Amino acid sequence: MASPVITLLTDFGHQDPFVGIMKGVILRIHPVATVVDLTHGVPPQNVLAGALILKQAAPFFPPGSIHVAVVDPGVGSERRGLLVGTRTHFFVGPDNGLLSLAAPEEEVVWIVHLTNPRFFLSPLSRTFHGRDVFAPVAAYLSAGITPTDFGPQVATMERLCVPLPHQEKAKVVGEVVYTDHFGNLVTNIPEHALLPFPMDRLFVNIKQVQIRGLSFTYTAVTEGEFVAVVNSWGYLEIAVRNGSAARRAGGSLGEPVTVTLLEGGGTDATT
Amino acid sequence: MASPVITLLTDFGHQDPFVGIMKGVILRIHPVATVVDLTHGVPPQNVLAGALILKQAAPFFPPGSIHVAVVDPGVGSERRGLLVGTRTHFFVGPDNGLLSLAAPEEEVVWIVHLTNPRFFLSPLSRTFHGRDVFAPVAAYLSAGITPTDFGPQVATMERLCVPLPHQEKAKVVGEVVYTDHFGNLVTNIPEHALLPFPMDRLFVNIKQVQIRGLSFTYTAVTEGEFVAVVNSWGYLEIAVRNGSAARRAGGSLGEPVTVTLLEGGGTDATT
Amino acid sequence: MASPVITLLTDFGHQDPFVGIMKGVILRIHPVATVVDLTHGVPPQNVLAGALILKQAAPFFPPGSIHVAVVDPGVGSERRGLLVGTRTHFFVGPDNGLLSLAAPEEEVVWIVHLTNPRFFLSPLSRTFHGRDVFAPVAAYLSAGITPTDFGPQVATMERLCVPLPHQEKAKVVGEVVYTDHFGNLVTNIPEHALLPFPMDRLFVNIKQVQIRGLSFTYTAVTEGEFVAVVNSWGYLEIAVRNGSAARRAGGSLGEPVTVTLLEGGGTDATT
Repeated sequence: MASPVITLLTDFGHQDPFVGIMKGVILRIHPVATVVDLTHGVPPQNVLAGALILKQAAPFFPPGSIHVAVVDPGVGSERRGLLVGTRTHFFVGPDNGLLSLAAPEEEVVWIVHLTNPRFFLSPLSRTFHGRDVFAPVAAYLSAGITPTDFGPQVATMERLCVPLPHQEKAKVVGEVVYTDHFGNLVTNIPEHALLPFPMDRLFVNIKQVQIRGLSFTYTAVTEGEFVAVVNSWGYLEIAVRNGSAARRAGGSLGEPVTVTLLEGGGTDATT
Repeated sequence: MASPVITLLTDFGHQDPFVGIMKGVILRIHPVATVVDLTHGVPPQNVLAGALILKQAAPFFPPGSIHVAVVDPGVGSERRGLLVGTRTHFFVGPDNGLLSLAAPEEEVVWIVHLTNPRFFLSPLSRTFHGRDVFAPVAAYLSAGITPTDFGPQVATMERLCVPLPHQEKAKVVGEVVYTDHFGNLVTNIPEHALLPFPMDRLFVNIKQVQIRGLSFTYTAVTEGEFVAVVNSWGYLEIAVRNGSAARRAGGSLGEPVTVTLLEGGGTDATT
Repeated sequence: MASPVITLLTDFGHQDPFVGIMKGVILRIHPVATVVDLTHGVPPQNVLAGALILKQAAPFFPPGSIHVAVVDPGVGSERRGLLVGTRTHFFVGPDNGLLSLAAPEEEVVWIVHLTNPRFFLSPLSRTFHGRDVFAPVAAYLSAGITPTDFGPQVATMERLCVPLPHQEKAKVVGEVVYTDHFGNLVTNIPEHALLPFPMDRLFVNIKQVQIRGLSFTYTAVTEGEFVAVVNSWGYLEIAVRNGSAARRAGGSLGEPVTVTLLEGGGTDATT
């Protein structure tokens, strides 16, 4: 039987050996562990981006997977280290909200505060708990250690507030919460918020750009044109076919995005 | 016995969790799969670059390997998804030419059009078939599903035309088809096209740069100088020792490269 | 029993399939090999940076691990390829000093000059020994081939000189030897060189920046402020909380860093 998958998500980038070292630590403890990179390209210290990515990615892994997440600007301070069990997965990382979107309150079964030094590297550094705490805990867990051996259970964990879109009649106001590698602008407007709007008669507005209609695919428009789709996360996304919407629209994180319905049909989209 | 290797080649970059998600999908279907990254740094939507890379890399993998390639600007449109069997490998990806250099016509044994939704993720998104179609098909194939279970066989697939060099007497005119991480300029001029030329009396010309002679190694010149070699792909490559030929020569994709023979010996190389 | 881990460290970056090809070569020889990326982001041709990274990372891997390192500007020249055995690990790579910090003289048990073409890919290229020599040798070694089968033992290998800090009374003068992904500036001043100084009364100077006191964590200062810590490698490091010290201080490799003691207590830190 395969050992549970251990995934790694960090803001460590790809220049340094930090991620490789975490894998070394894991393999020294549990030589047959299966380790998968989720991403190491989280913008430095951007806990919200890391939390959003973890929430999108974790459900695609086998039940019982152990997700290690390290975006940890408070490393070495009083912030706690956690091991969280939901109905289907395990999450390991700092108690700064990073785990809170992937492990929402209604799905959390238990939370363990990582305090047992028996499962940490020694000496314990103050600046690299990914190596000294979170990697070894994940490895021991995958090797069969009982969660409560890592420390006492606690009742709560830090939770992030993700900005929610405002819905008025015939209008939804959201914002850009993530920009991907292609320059696609992902909003916080979920598919169901768009259900009141006829696909071909809504308008999506960001900065000076207005897009008419929601499309099923990027190829619904010609090369270089803006297009609005529901993306693979289930959220409204603004893209440019074979181009970068982030560069073209000039929008970035926090940029307001408005969806409106033009009752009379109105004028054509102008980009 | 080890399960067949599954390789992944995409233009997804390393910022987002897209590649990690594909691995999760694979491991959920086939927990003991061996997954290897070929590269995720294909320039966005550059099908030709992806096809060239796949062609270079695939032969170094064990027979029976399954190569998943996703450079897919037409995702969600009418373009088909394919599973291609050659005498030695399997290829999975969109029918846009991406697979056509690694699986040339004379080596293709069968082509299957991926239509059986039983092997897709559900619901099927319109924007991420890497996750919903190609990753699961590769996983099921590696787990032993018969190729024809994925859909009907078809006779043909889209094929890319790679620019071929022109050979005249005592002259070859090619072009740059790939620029690597080091700034080395890879041309479409294969080693055998250079056989008529004495190594030390040919001239390689790109833009304002003229290189005299073909060298065996980058170290044949001093630091910062241009050098022409036959690279590890078997093609003429223009490099700068410990530097970037792309930056120095100013050449990029499509830039003409001429190889000439100076009968009289001529003047020395000037760079 | 798990097969020994094979780690890969290169300056190949992530754009090209070079690393993926090395993994293909390894898996073709030894299908159950466990391959881990240490990093492929070593600055091109920077042998010292690669050697420092390898030295930091290797000890965290299981005993018996095989570390393949390829930062190899002299590929194809007369420089030798080596397999080095220390008391705990194996190292494979070019004889240009790259292996010399991770395998210091006092820990080396034997050095083998890689000459046996039976374990190389054929034909052997002049530009990609990572693929043709080092990856296959690591794979055969992990599969159980005896080290001396790869070639004759030799007595010595190239060794790098790492700049050492100068210690005067109440003053240490070192320099920046590595800049990480976060812009943290790692110096060559080891923790023990700081022992004579009271933590709260030493001053760290780099360019126009003076930092008062050594902190345990990055969070000891407020956001955007400079902080000096002993990092996870055990060396003095200059950071900016949630920012980039490299960008803010303007320092880079080789920049002098001075640690002084102000007997009278002196003025407060100014940054």
